[in-house]
Amino acid sequence: MWKFVSRKFLTHFPTSSFYPLLFSLLHSHSLASPLSLSHSNFPVTTHNINPKEYSDSIERAWRILDQIPGRATGAYSHSQGIKGLRDTIAAGIEARDGFPADPNDIFLTDGASPGVHMMMQLLIRSENDGILCPIPQYPLYSASITLHGGKLVPYYLNEETGWGLEMPELKKQLEDAKSKGINVRALVVINPGNPTGQVLPEENQKQIVQFCKEEGLVLLADEVYQENVYVPEKKFHSFKKVSRSLGYGENDISVVSFQSVSKGYYGECGKRGGYFEVTGFSSDVREQIYKMASVNLCSNVSGQILASLVMSPPEVGDDSYESYFAEKDEILTSMARRAKTLEEAFKKLEGVTCNKAEGAMYLFPRIELPNKAIEAAKAENTVPDAFYCKQLLQATGIVFVPGSGFGQVPGTWHFRCTILPQEEKIPAIVTRLTKFHENFMDQFHD
Amino acid sequence: MWKFVSRKFLTHFPTSSFYPLLFSLLHSHSLASPLSLSHSNFPVTTHNINPKEYSDSIERAWRILDQIPGRATGAYSHSQGIKGLRDTIAAGIEARDGFPADPNDIFLTDGASPGVHMMMQLLIRSENDGILCPIPQYPLYSASITLHGGKLVPYYLNEETGWGLEMPELKKQLEDAKSKGINVRALVVINPGNPTGQVLPEENQKQIVQFCKEEGLVLLADEVYQENVYVPEKKFHSFKKVSRSLGYGENDISVVSFQSVSKGYYGECGKRGGYFEVTGFSSDVREQIYKMASVNLCSNVSGQILASLVMSPPEVGDDSYESYFAEKDEILTSMARRAKTLEEAFKKLEGVTCNKAEGAMYLFPRIELPNKAIEAAKAENTVPDAFYCKQLLQATGIVFVPGSGFGQVPGTWHFRCTILPQEEKIPAIVTRLTKFHENFMDQFHD
Repeated sequence: MWKFVSRKFLTHFPTSSFYPLLFSLLHSHSLASPLSLSHSNFPVTTHNINPKEYSDSIERAWRILDQIPGRATGAYSHSQGIKGLRDTIAAGIEARDGFPADPNDIFLTDGASPGVHMMMQLLIRSENDGILCPIPQYPLYSASITLHGGKLVPYYLNEETGWGLEMPELKKQLEDAKSKGINVRALVVINPGNPTGQVLPEENQKQIVQFCKEEGLVLLADEVYQENVYVPEKKFHSFKKVSRSLGYGENDISVVSFQSVSKGYYGECGKRGGYFEVTGFSSDVREQIYKMASVNLCSNVSGQILASLVMSPPEVGDDSYESYFAEKDEILTSMARRAKTLEEAFKKLEGVTCNKAEGAMYLFPRIELPNKAIEAAKAENTVPDAFYCKQLLQATGIVFVPGSGFGQVPGTWHFRCTILPQEEKIPAIVTRLTKFHENFMDQFHD
Repeated sequence: MWKFVSRKFLTHFPTSSFYPLLFSLLHSHSLASPLSLSHSNFPVTTHNINPKEYSDSIERAWRILDQIPGRATGAYSHSQGIKGLRDTIAAGIEARDGFPADPNDIFLTDGASPGVHMMMQLLIRSENDGILCPIPQYPLYSASITLHGGKLVPYYLNEETGWGLEMPELKKQLEDAKSKGINVRALVVINPGNPTGQVLPEENQKQIVQFCKEEGLVLLADEVYQENVYVPEKKFHSFKKVSRSLGYGENDISVVSFQSVSKGYYGECGKRGGYFEVTGFSSDVREQIYKMASVNLCSNVSGQILASLVMSPPEVGDDSYESYFAEKDEILTSMARRAKTLEEAFKKLEGVTCNKAEGAMYLFPRIELPNKAIEAAKAENTVPDAFYCKQLLQATGIVFVPGSGFGQVPGTWHFRCTILPQEEKIPAIVTRLTKFHENFMDQFHD
């Protein structure tokens, strides 16, 4: 009985710190589509659970319950999120960055997206306000800027240098926008990149921070893939840490960092947990952010708890540490292997080039489509990369997202592919993809 | 062990249909403030749980898990919410109204508020677009209209007729707005009323439906208090049911109904569950609603499950029905008694009048403040009703919300009081309030 019930207990409510375990239980399934875009087919391991091995998880469950006023997970919380959970998150940020974090700077949200909307709503005052966004970008940004009536000011990532974020391009686009009368208010950086999968070098991050400081831009740092770095030569550094390490404090630069429970090695997307940390805003603006957070009362409390767990994993010496670390490592190294396998498969396809998969959960290969394919797409009133992806889906069941959904240099074509299918399925996917691609190129050869 | 663990199981994840039980476990606490605004001090009963008595709950838990693709509560769902849960909700609406409901019309949301925002964002195209809103109103509406750059077109509820929604007032305000060049797009009706606690007569609802049909207004029906009706002479009727009973179908009138898991007799506010049902929109508009829902990916899956439970309570013949019904009845009759006790207490206070508490969770008494109190408030740069509420809070710990937060006829003063404090605490609250009020009136007598 204990086994059944404890599994239920652990599975269904994340008051345990042992979230990789939770995660593996929650994700013990597979979807029909082998390259689905959903994060629901994360890698899975199964465990025999002995509650005595996880005394720290049980202690933590009680500690979290005690942090919730009246232990009422069903009651509204503070509009920024439960204070005790924000304390935990602030401590986690400090441990990650080596610089202080203030729980009053943290706003818990239903996933990262509502925080992005909130900042766009605050920043965009009229159609003359612009937001610098990478191209390719995660379409949340283009959608949110459009919804709030502002202008997306694009800066192109350089595919030649591994989707490099290059300062001359950033400066050029800013000046162009200014010359058109656009007030550029903020710069969005997605690091690790979505859909492009690059991890920014720290030197580059420093330049970006300097640029924002000099130009008075709010730095909107999408850091939801901070745990997803697959190459030893790259490390994740938060933009707040980089700005603090340059000696910039509250009065020098405004940085907003977005984090989510939907990524990393946990992938609890359906729980809708996340937060943003705001630094470098005046108290007037802070009050407005708080007022906006209050309009929707609060984010869901289970998601709040998960966000605190993500930022405070078990530590060396905790009962659950070893199995936690083993599972985390297993998941992340498996993701790295899958990324590498897919990258190499793409490189072998005729007309396809693919940058190194450094981080996040995606590859964004470029494809040179034959003219005949482009004409066939036109005849169907379809964008060429969407035409390719539709054909692939119909022939194989594999889902890629056309590059046109993310933006790309005009005349180039790409697709986004996740690295999330189960590892043992990857070889079969590669075989099917390769066969499809050969047939496609045969069919449309110039 | 079973007892402990099963409580945890049932407490922490609502896969049981026996939600009043869940609810009572989740709310077994009390807050310091006896008249807190939070819904966290709902009435509480305790139970000895015998799982054999609730076979229907356990069956339902499995059925719900089977409705979730891959049983993955941690995965993203369809952006409108899990299809099986929407089927359940549609069936619940049909059972409630006696008219068909379509699961494709249902959009699950993190509480009711995000749905309201979504509709405002869709309806408001420019500052010349207006939304008819009751005054007093729940401030979500004024906030959302302001955030989306539209104009709130107020219509005043008539306090003399029990906060009646009177058609001449509605017509007058619509004409006034039109004459100022405002495009009035929609009418918000909150029924049962927040903060005013009235329940609209069906006859009145018919007039409102006719009015919306004739004027081409979208009817935004805030029906989150649909279970909270405390007087035998009034019943809740959904606006969709009323419009269908008048013979109006999809092509005649656009109605949006908002529902939440935060109210009723369940009060699971921290879970952030809710939905809206849209009827009478063209497929073009429907596509835009779906696109907007997709931007934030999906609402939290636990909240989605709860929303389905709220709309499909145990039925006669189910093992859990009797204890479910007993607890529901106990909670609602206790709320009715508390509303009545508070209403009568208010009526005895000098200078205070109070309408009948028919529904929702609030009383909204009117207070004639002495001139000296109004001057004292001015001297402190405070609105007079806020001045009264602050003094009350400081003297007694009782929290009322000033009427000025909801809007009121200029020159009148009110406060909103919830009926949620535990019933056994109400007499002490009444004693403290009465004593405070006497002192206040003595101090500021003209």
